[in-house]
Amino acid sequence: MSSLHLDTFATNYKQLLENHQRKSINRLQAPPVLKEAMLYSLEAGGKRIRPLLLFATLHAFQKDPEIGLNAAAAIEMIHTYSLIHDDLPSMDNDDLRRGKPTNHKVFGEANAILAGDALLTYSFQLIAESPNVSMEAKMTLIQLLAQSAGAEGMVAGQVADMIGEEKELNLEELEYIHIHKTGKMLTCSVLAGAILACVSEEEYDWLERFSHHLGLAFQIRDDLLDIDGDEEVIGKPVGSDEGNHKTTYPSLLGIKGAQDELMKQIQFAKDYLMKINKDTQLLQSITDLVENRNH
Amino acid sequence: MSSLHLDTFATNYKQLLENHQRKSINRLQAPPVLKEAMLYSLEAGGKRIRPLLLFATLHAFQKDPEIGLNAAAAIEMIHTYSLIHDDLPSMDNDDLRRGKPTNHKVFGEANAILAGDALLTYSFQLIAESPNVSMEAKMTLIQLLAQSAGAEGMVAGQVADMIGEEKELNLEELEYIHIHKTGKMLTCSVLAGAILACVSEEEYDWLERFSHHLGLAFQIRDDLLDIDGDEEVIGKPVGSDEGNHKTTYPSLLGIKGAQDELMKQIQFAKDYLMKINKDTQLLQSITDLVENRNH
Repeated sequence: MSSLHLDTFATNYKQLLENHQRKSINRLQAPPVLKEAMLYSLEAGGKRIRPLLLFATLHAFQKDPEIGLNAAAAIEMIHTYSLIHDDLPSMDNDDLRRGKPTNHKVFGEANAILAGDALLTYSFQLIAESPNVSMEAKMTLIQLLAQSAGAEGMVAGQVADMIGEEKELNLEELEYIHIHKTGKMLTCSVLAGAILACVSEEEYDWLERFSHHLGLAFQIRDDLLDIDGDEEVIGKPVGSDEGNHKTTYPSLLGIKGAQDELMKQIQFAKDYLMKINKDTQLLQSITDLVENRNH
Repeated sequence: MSSLHLDTFATNYKQLLENHQRKSINRLQAPPVLKEAMLYSLEAGGKRIRPLLLFATLHAFQKDPEIGLNAAAAIEMIHTYSLIHDDLPSMDNDDLRRGKPTNHKVFGEANAILAGDALLTYSFQLIAESPNVSMEAKMTLIQLLAQSAGAEGMVAGQVADMIGEEKELNLEELEYIHIHKTGKMLTCSVLAGAILACVSEEEYDWLERFSHHLGLAFQIRDDLLDIDGDEEVIGKPVGSDEGNHKTTYPSLLGIKGAQDELMKQIQFAKDYLMKINKDTQLLQSITDLVENRNH
């Protein structure tokens, strides 16, 4: 399969996801401003890489990706809530995200906090309401999602990131942050697909390792983009990490060292994918995309 | 059964709950400051009326209240997260809660937001991990909890409350706020007990109506306490609602009118309780407590 295949697949399922998200928010009986604030950030664009990983995993195991629609929307809602809260003045204090004013700039801080809370809460409801999914699978998904997003997952990474801003980090500390802050929810996306596809224990383990290395690669590429990226394309000033004296892979390993580390993680990811005797072409294409992405 | 019975029951189960909460947080593999911030607000005291309603409902149906321990902790964690976020500078901007510095005053705004996020997330995990509870009951609990806490429940009430601060409300608007902001989670507490006790549909309906009226009574008493309460006991300045030009039951109905409305809601609550042919004495005692509470 060619990379065109991934493009087509991504375009189709991105649209399906975005329609589903919009419908799911619109049907809520809630104050209009709350729904607007939730939708504003959900619809602010983005690569939808998490849902795409979930759909591609289902595809690899010959399952209809549509059975993952609620889970994919749930994961994207959690990702979106984390961006809304991260952008707040008391956190990263960002006015722009993907070239658009951040949620609190449009709706005010209080509404932004509450829109995030509501997205997080709704994500669990969406999984519980997934049609055509067994009760066992839904319960496993809920546990996975809570562990990946909460105090042992993404939130832990965010707290560690804030602590880390005040000092120079070593490689182990930097990895802890990325594995938790970004990695856990990327892994969760692949594993949610694995749970819905009822894969074997062995396949589950390989997919977990694949997504672990993919997550690290994703972050290293992010750090490199801050140095060699195009401001117009990445949507933030190039060199902002260095300006903020932030510890990054290039600051610890040098640019060449970070590029080597990126290649290493991509290779690990692909090696685990190769072990799976299924049509993992889409997952491979996503891995290529992570390696070469320019935004 | 006497009110002493409720005292003993409350003391026992409050202790059981608080130990369980502490253990549940302590076992998390998370940055220490995050766990401290989560525990700080969880352990800041409070009446634990939500867990108590859950335990008392289980007791009424001859079930061991301990089967509701995870669900009670989950509900209390959601209540606690809502207090942490409500107290933030961009929301109510409160420096003190129950006479202690608010979470963001101790841990900073960013940690307070994240501790709230982590408590909310963990609550769903705790329900999913409830021992000795059927998968069906856990799934129903998760849906109930998400609906009660999220965009159609507590968060809706908080948004409506903020919108309402800018204008004079009528009784219908005031009730919308209270039914959502406080009522939904009180109802959720009773209904969580009902789900765990596998009550009949009819009993479920009566318990829902009971807790709906109990929730309104709770809020009217709260408004009255702001006028006739003892500052030392309620932990905030008496008359703060009037000073803030906040619409309250007394401001809409007068003190006498609000007292009458309180009595009416208490009577409705008790009438529904009477329909249930079980040992509802503890739930009745809690209703008396809501009517007469001085903090």
